[in-house]
Amino acid sequence: MAGYTYRNAVMFQHCDPAGIVFYPRYFEMINEVVETLFRDALRWPFAEMHVRERMGVPTGKISTDFHAPSRLGDVLDWRLVVTRIGGASLDATVSAACAGEARLTATLTLVYVDLEAMRSVRWPEDKRAALAQFMEDTP
Amino acid sequence: MAGYTYRNAVMFQHCDPAGIVFYPRYFEMINEVVETLFRDALRWPFAEMHVRERMGVPTGKISTDFHAPSRLGDVLDWRLVVTRIGGASLDATVSAACAGEARLTATLTLVYVDLEAMRSVRWPEDKRAALAQFMEDTP
Amino acid sequence: MAGYTYRNAVMFQHCDPAGIVFYPRYFEMINEVVETLFRDALRWPFAEMHVRERMGVPTGKISTDFHAPSRLGDVLDWRLVVTRIGGASLDATVSAACAGEARLTATLTLVYVDLEAMRSVRWPEDKRAALAQFMEDTP
Amino acid sequence: MAGYTYRNAVMFQHCDPAGIVFYPRYFEMINEVVETLFRDALRWPFAEMHVRERMGVPTGKISTDFHAPSRLGDVLDWRLVVTRIGGASLDATVSAACAGEARLTATLTLVYVDLEAMRSVRWPEDKRAALAQFMEDTP
Repeated sequence: MAGYTYRNAVMFQHCDPAGIVFYPRYFEMINEVVETLFRDALRWPFAEMHVRERMGVPTGKISTDFHAPSRLGDVLDWRLVVTRIGGASLDATVSAACAGEARLTATLTLVYVDLEAMRSVRWPEDKRAALAQFMEDTP
Repeated sequence: MAGYTYRNAVMFQHCDPAGIVFYPRYFEMINEVVETLFRDALRWPFAEMHVRERMGVPTGKISTDFHAPSRLGDVLDWRLVVTRIGGASLDATVSAACAGEARLTATLTLVYVDLEAMRSVRWPEDKRAALAQFMEDTP
Repeated sequence: MAGYTYRNAVMFQHCDPAGIVFYPRYFEMINEVVETLFRDALRWPFAEMHVRERMGVPTGKISTDFHAPSRLGDVLDWRLVVTRIGGASLDATVSAACAGEARLTATLTLVYVDLEAMRSVRWPEDKRAALAQFMEDTP
Repeated sequence: MAGYTYRNAVMFQHCDPAGIVFYPRYFEMINEVVETLFRDALRWPFAEMHVRERMGVPTGKISTDFHAPSRLGDVLDWRLVVTRIGGASLDATVSAACAGEARLTATLTLVYVDLEAMRSVRWPEDKRAALAQFMEDTP
């Protein structure tokens, strides 16, 4: 199956007085999926990227549909599929499900930037190639 | 000018190692704008709605464009404009600017729900009327 | 070795503009250590405790010494040792280290309470016995 | 009355599934009290301190007693009293109450440090003098 997968559990800190995930916490989780992809699959930890290289991958835009609420203790199966790799950007779809039930689908654009100049920069070729392996296979 | 306005400052807790607002914190701020609108403009505090009435207004979907980064100490001017009031839902545009420079624009849909049944419920008429005053004037 | 152990990584969401863990995030981590102990070691998930049983374990007090800052990417080794089990309370020491270097030590008191009445309640005997296994061996 | 005062409201984002403030959020609030004191009373915003001067005031230790839970919508009255000004450190007591009912008392030590070297540095004399005005009057 294409895409990068990640799993986490809905903890107490994610939930609101309604007993469901407070939606801003989902964006922390989405960031965690992206950060883990960069660290484990691209071998490009955010510490190296941000602190040593002074580069970053801020989110330029993100659209999210929340299909059903998630509750304390739910185990979420995340999947990130790269849908487009631009010169200095990346489009991806990130989705979460619990026991096969869809919880959210997000489409986002990341931009690779020089943090000092806040200017976009072309992806290094090896990283671009590594990102391409998370694209959906075309038939 | 139409819409509900709110102002906050970018605090230390909102910023990431790149020195800019970590984007999930923007969604906490957007929630704060909505929560304050309900409390101050609709006289319908979330405590009353969630705890006593066991109702809620979860976000069904939200799309956000981040135009420029915000930094520690920036003062953000928020504006929420209601764009559609459905039977049990609400569409709105929420935007933030700093000294007139656009930082983000979000369009979102809230749904008024019974938290026990997680089923949408028709807005009370007086609240619907109160929400309507934050719609953009049509010419 | 006595005590309950847990490991996590310092992620982007935990760090502040100084590039180190923002200390309130450590308390989210400490809560995660406690929550995971209850879930995995006591087989008493917070969802069951809070949502179904309407009981909770709020923190009555906590004292923390921060020995050295933690940075993005650091892997933290957590250890929780139960130091006293009262009728309706629990004292514990929670510490974190990175590659053997101490980062923080916290001593805390949890109280087992009925969330409706906000009144302390005696620990169930089987849970008390399960908690006792995380006490330091006395010589 | 001596000390620095600050007021905030318990918002949805601060509360847990038990409907009360999740205690790590109190530490974000305590940080906000300190940050606002530095910004408004010392005219030393964290942006200037952290970003331009590359200095910081990390918390070296903090002990907190939680007297009673706070709920969604509660308005908290904060008070910070400086109890000791060391060469490069500061001891303070921070407390919160709601309608006169004590909610928490924290005692903390901040250290003024050079963020690059992570080494403590003597307070500037004008800032030390400004901090002294928040000490409790001695009889």
